[in-house]
Amino acid sequence: MIVNMSEKATEDQIQHIIDRVREAGYQPHVTRGTERTIVAAVGSGRRHEIEALQVAPGVDNVVAIAQPFKLVSRQVKPERSIVRINGVAIGGAEVVVIAGPCSVESREQLLDTAHAVKRSGASMLRGGAYKPRTSPYDFQGLGVEALKILQDAHRETGLPVVTEVMSTEDIDLICEYVDMLQVGARNMQNFALLRRLATIKKPILLKRGPSATVKEWLLAAEYLLSGGNQQVVLCERGIKTFETEMRNTMDLAAIALARDLSHLPVIADPSHGTGKQSLIAAVSRAAVAVGADGLIIEVHPCPERALSDGPQSLDFAGFERVMQALTEPLRPTARTAWAAAEAS
Amino acid sequence: MIVNMSEKATEDQIQHIIDRVREAGYQPHVTRGTERTIVAAVGSGRRHEIEALQVAPGVDNVVAIAQPFKLVSRQVKPERSIVRINGVAIGGAEVVVIAGPCSVESREQLLDTAHAVKRSGASMLRGGAYKPRTSPYDFQGLGVEALKILQDAHRETGLPVVTEVMSTEDIDLICEYVDMLQVGARNMQNFALLRRLATIKKPILLKRGPSATVKEWLLAAEYLLSGGNQQVVLCERGIKTFETEMRNTMDLAAIALARDLSHLPVIADPSHGTGKQSLIAAVSRAAVAVGADGLIIEVHPCPERALSDGPQSLDFAGFERVMQALTEPLRPTARTAWAAAEAS
Amino acid sequence: MIVNMSEKATEDQIQHIIDRVREAGYQPHVTRGTERTIVAAVGSGRRHEIEALQVAPGVDNVVAIAQPFKLVSRQVKPERSIVRINGVAIGGAEVVVIAGPCSVESREQLLDTAHAVKRSGASMLRGGAYKPRTSPYDFQGLGVEALKILQDAHRETGLPVVTEVMSTEDIDLICEYVDMLQVGARNMQNFALLRRLATIKKPILLKRGPSATVKEWLLAAEYLLSGGNQQVVLCERGIKTFETEMRNTMDLAAIALARDLSHLPVIADPSHGTGKQSLIAAVSRAAVAVGADGLIIEVHPCPERALSDGPQSLDFAGFERVMQALTEPLRPTARTAWAAAEAS
Amino acid sequence: MIVNMSEKATEDQIQHIIDRVREAGYQPHVTRGTERTIVAAVGSGRRHEIEALQVAPGVDNVVAIAQPFKLVSRQVKPERSIVRINGVAIGGAEVVVIAGPCSVESREQLLDTAHAVKRSGASMLRGGAYKPRTSPYDFQGLGVEALKILQDAHRETGLPVVTEVMSTEDIDLICEYVDMLQVGARNMQNFALLRRLATIKKPILLKRGPSATVKEWLLAAEYLLSGGNQQVVLCERGIKTFETEMRNTMDLAAIALARDLSHLPVIADPSHGTGKQSLIAAVSRAAVAVGADGLIIEVHPCPERALSDGPQSLDFAGFERVMQALTEPLRPTARTAWAAAEAS
Repeated sequence: MIVNMSEKATEDQIQHIIDRVREAGYQPHVTRGTERTIVAAVGSGRRHEIEALQVAPGVDNVVAIAQPFKLVSRQVKPERSIVRINGVAIGGAEVVVIAGPCSVESREQLLDTAHAVKRSGASMLRGGAYKPRTSPYDFQGLGVEALKILQDAHRETGLPVVTEVMSTEDIDLICEYVDMLQVGARNMQNFALLRRLATIKKPILLKRGPSATVKEWLLAAEYLLSGGNQQVVLCERGIKTFETEMRNTMDLAAIALARDLSHLPVIADPSHGTGKQSLIAAVSRAAVAVGADGLIIEVHPCPERALSDGPQSLDFAGFERVMQALTEPLRPTARTAWAAAEAS
Repeated sequence: MIVNMSEKATEDQIQHIIDRVREAGYQPHVTRGTERTIVAAVGSGRRHEIEALQVAPGVDNVVAIAQPFKLVSRQVKPERSIVRINGVAIGGAEVVVIAGPCSVESREQLLDTAHAVKRSGASMLRGGAYKPRTSPYDFQGLGVEALKILQDAHRETGLPVVTEVMSTEDIDLICEYVDMLQVGARNMQNFALLRRLATIKKPILLKRGPSATVKEWLLAAEYLLSGGNQQVVLCERGIKTFETEMRNTMDLAAIALARDLSHLPVIADPSHGTGKQSLIAAVSRAAVAVGADGLIIEVHPCPERALSDGPQSLDFAGFERVMQALTEPLRPTARTAWAAAEAS
Repeated sequence: MIVNMSEKATEDQIQHIIDRVREAGYQPHVTRGTERTIVAAVGSGRRHEIEALQVAPGVDNVVAIAQPFKLVSRQVKPERSIVRINGVAIGGAEVVVIAGPCSVESREQLLDTAHAVKRSGASMLRGGAYKPRTSPYDFQGLGVEALKILQDAHRETGLPVVTEVMSTEDIDLICEYVDMLQVGARNMQNFALLRRLATIKKPILLKRGPSATVKEWLLAAEYLLSGGNQQVVLCERGIKTFETEMRNTMDLAAIALARDLSHLPVIADPSHGTGKQSLIAAVSRAAVAVGADGLIIEVHPCPERALSDGPQSLDFAGFERVMQALTEPLRPTARTAWAAAEAS
Repeated sequence: MIVNMSEKATEDQIQHIIDRVREAGYQPHVTRGTERTIVAAVGSGRRHEIEALQVAPGVDNVVAIAQPFKLVSRQVKPERSIVRINGVAIGGAEVVVIAGPCSVESREQLLDTAHAVKRSGASMLRGGAYKPRTSPYDFQGLGVEALKILQDAHRETGLPVVTEVMSTEDIDLICEYVDMLQVGARNMQNFALLRRLATIKKPILLKRGPSATVKEWLLAAEYLLSGGNQQVVLCERGIKTFETEMRNTMDLAAIALARDLSHLPVIADPSHGTGKQSLIAAVSRAAVAVGADGLIIEVHPCPERALSDGPQSLDFAGFERVMQALTEPLRPTARTAWAAAEAS
């Protein structure tokens, strides 16, 4: 931490800061410039006490240097983590595709979808039982009935299942039926929920909030790891910007950045990230190219009859096309041509 | 709802949409233009079934006309609502000022603050017992100990008390001690929490999420009203933008807009909205001028020693200056001079 | 400037940075912490050479301390500047109201408007001759014909006139006809235009870009002052965010912040800032309350027939109501009542 | 265009709108619902006259249906356009890589870079002669001297050259020396510049503004096409969001969307899009995967000594690694393994 004194700071004000830095458990190092003085807080003390000095007299601002997260950081654990969900490994050599409907609407709808996505190469099944809906008048999910259907789908297909948890009160029940619990984007900073999920034995899929910075996202994961749950997969699902043609702005570079900063696996959700069927294939390819460890994609037997998220859901043929697209090579550059020539 | 067919839509596709509109409980009205056909869904049916037609073949897009909220709307209830909190009325003739520390840190800290803000004209006391903190390593609040201190402060000063609730599990306990429960910005779309708060008898202070549109904010309030709790006060506390000099961007026009669209009272939080002591007085005046029914302001005996939000907290003298600023007239225009001359 | 070395930086890498800091004209001050080393660049040297060290081996990041602007800063000139436009002073005791149509459409339209806004208390007239339009198919302005009409309106009413300049090629012509030149939001970083406007004798109205930070806005003004033109008025006109109910998000706190950081006058444009007739009065009041030195408001004899910006233009009666609203006192708080009682 | 009447609209107000729709050159089609009436404007008339009805009495809002752009649209020209720049085709089978320094700093710097990037597979050279700089105190470019150096580099290496134009006054001069003119992000809506560039014979590289929607970007291109210049390449370079760890947020999905809506080629600028050396390779791969027709990448012999944009510039070895990365296949999914097995 560095405390920048203002140009007009008095000697008393500087001395006060030096005292407070020491009081907070750090060693103060003072640099006197021609125009201003800088007090560096060296060592490890109580960070917030230095932050609060921002309003002390004579202080211009306080700058943090080190990143605020620890256990999720690659500085602490340089090798990449692999999260295992009932036989499926996220963060390993293969990109893992999770697919399924936004909401579980019926046994038939889910089982048909489960078989279809498995046929096309999905490794896990998604499906909402408790739905976070912007309006109280929208379909809120089938609840425990949906959980039972999800469990049946797992038994029939072998695909591990992930579903969203919205409340601490539902955690125990959900854990009986599914393999992985999702924290939705709107709950990324529901700290009561995070603290409880830190104590369970199931892996967590942590979506990035629509206006969360990468740092805030990693700090939300830090709640899970510091509470005892190391099995965390991050998921980028688009952020809110001024663009209106797409539901969100998919921040694909954040996937690369999160993987640079953290050892946790990171997957992408192109369905919510774009809100548009027509963009899913291209954005899925881009997510894999940027380094995503997996994809989570909404698939519905008949999107125009979906009870939620129809406009961004693929039908079975559409999902098949996306999976095919992931096997195609990158469009060549002049350089690619040489490389091919050299290789042959 | 209006379904816009694409220019190349076939007669069969148009007919399919007409059938689906009828199936969803609406009456279809068809307008055939020179370039494209429009199908309006007239009457009241199942909205989401029309929304999902966005992905039906031959459809360009689906446009909603009516606002999605009902009970919070001024179209349903044109007269303004007044919310009463243990003797204080928000939404009436007077602007209500709520003040107090970000976190309750000790009995002395809170009681000193309560007396000070009362002296300067505050009508309610704020103080956090359970704190939503971005990092798990930051101070998380004193919990039930803080609730007891808040109750004592109320008994000593008579000021009604508001505190944040973060989890459904804490609701009953908190209700024993305080007069109003706050839903924090990061929990605005914690629908499990909203659904439970809809069933209690205490008034709710609902903060706008940092990336929520005004429409989403009103729909969050709709969860409370439709669940049975009419005692809701909205609070604008700044949204996240690209600006880095301030913690958030205070969206003051949204206060005027929310009051146009809804009958609920709306207050402003200039402390979180700006994150800067030096801007609180000016932004508080602006909030009142734009129509806010109240203000919620962070005050601490010694901001540079605050355990949270020090940089945006006022000391007692600073709060006194803000309250004074609210009694000063607007800077005159040429017109003001005439008006004054005419009046005399 | 401070260069933060990474935890793993070698002694050679630290020495390289020390050498480069000296090479760039600064004195290096080194603080060795338990975990990392900090090199402060003290004195005044070539800033960009330090910034570029961000990519030198062993460097974590480079942090700037001082603000990058100089001549616009209140640290350089603490007293507030007043800009005089043909008899009207912006930045003085009175709030200056500039009003008029988005575009000059005809002599009758402009003269009627000029007389009407003058009657209601406006001190200056606005009107577009060259229009920046998102689509090439929209009305692009009457050009020189509009300039002549603006000059006539000035002669008839005595109101000084401001109009937008979009190209260096038009500057000389526009200067013959009007009293103040406006740089539109989309041209805030049109540096070729700024450099030429720095050399003229007319005052400049510099709008903030829709995605410019306050710092970037002040640096755009710095282009004008450093080039020789001190007569600059800043104008906040809303920034782009995710909100869709309003055209832009009016950043009123930025007015207070800009006035803290700079001595230049700052005015507000609630017409573009909200895009909604119904919000202009409330937002105008708020802008004055937050400290704005003036307002610029769109007024049209018949907004529903306006060739541009109809939805945000007021008719004459609407403008009269806004001007009246600016003479009304702030809604009282409990404190206001005491203050009134004490005063009587 | 559709005009939605409010629920309380009177018969007279509805009739007024019907008359105005006819007056604006459209045919009015009226749909009377149980709650409200809708007036559709059918045919082709004067769009802005309908837009302005938003403020007519009894009107709730006006909704546009058709996209506002024409010549850039794939509805008008379904087949993709190819833009040819002195022998290089953008929009064809190969991804075109443009590389070079942010600014031309010296003959040696540019020629060394030109040879290096050519060796690694770049097809075109970039280099700034006139620099748009946020601060007037930053390096502003070598001007005509840089143009001459660019021309020499083209002669020596055969690489076509692109450079930024900031002012209408420089167009003729720049055209003498280079093969393609770039409109920078901050000038995307410098309409005076666009109108003049529409009349020249050179191809244009049009960067997206940092807060421009995809629609506004395409309308900026429409200025060029409607003015007579069909040789336009679009370039996504990141938008401004709340994220602070990266310079901008790369909106890669917008590349896919722009290619859906328009026939023009679209390239990506990962250097400005991220502002971070360490992310360039991953984001370049993602851009190609999402469908980009090319890349423009900043390369400098010694980034830590660059006069501008050092932190995002690659050295020669770094650029070589990016080009290699573009030849590598996508990470496999379970599906990929099957596809490989089937193919063999």
